[in-house]
Amino acid sequence: MPKRLSAEARDEALVTLTGWKLAEGREALTKRFVFRDFNEAFGWMTRVALIAEKMDHHPEWSNVYRTVEVVLATHDAGGLTELDVKLARAMDAI
Amino acid sequence: MPKRLSAEARDEALVTLTGWKLAEGREALTKRFVFRDFNEAFGWMTRVALIAEKMDHHPEWSNVYRTVEVVLATHDAGGLTELDVKLARAMDAI
Repeated sequence: MPKRLSAEARDEALVTLTGWKLAEGREALTKRFVFRDFNEAFGWMTRVALIAEKMDHHPEWSNVYRTVEVVLATHDAGGLTELDVKLARAMDAI
Repeated sequence: MPKRLSAEARDEALVTLTGWKLAEGREALTKRFVFRDFNEAFGWMTRVALIAEKMDHHPEWSNVYRTVEVVLATHDAGGLTELDVKLARAMDAI
């Protein structure tokens, strides 16, 4: 299992991630993605889902029409790990 | 645009829908779907997405691993319409 990031490693990772911030009230990364329409939003979610399944690391996310709100955390580690940073980067790259 | 359902029509529809209830604080239908794993949950979402896009009527939904929370309402009508009942039935049927 990946280790929980230190506060320093977490801050370093945040600097390199565009638009991600720490969630309120819990150790997690969060970002709101806005697309052109539902087709684009769900198409993006589908591509992310394939990656998440391969990583065996899944986002918490909600979708309302063309908007997707994402929260990333590693439950087993009780906070953020390298897996969350990796998945965040993959989401940005798609 | 479909018309907002009367309170009677809404109650009649609710009786025929399994596991759906009125959301708290707003006129909307809500249901929590639990699957075996992420693969099943997202697979189901994908099938629903195709139907929703075809209907041009989209759910508000959030997914955490094998759970999907759905809220259905017709924003343009300011409440529930026949579209929500139809999409709810389609979700149950898949």
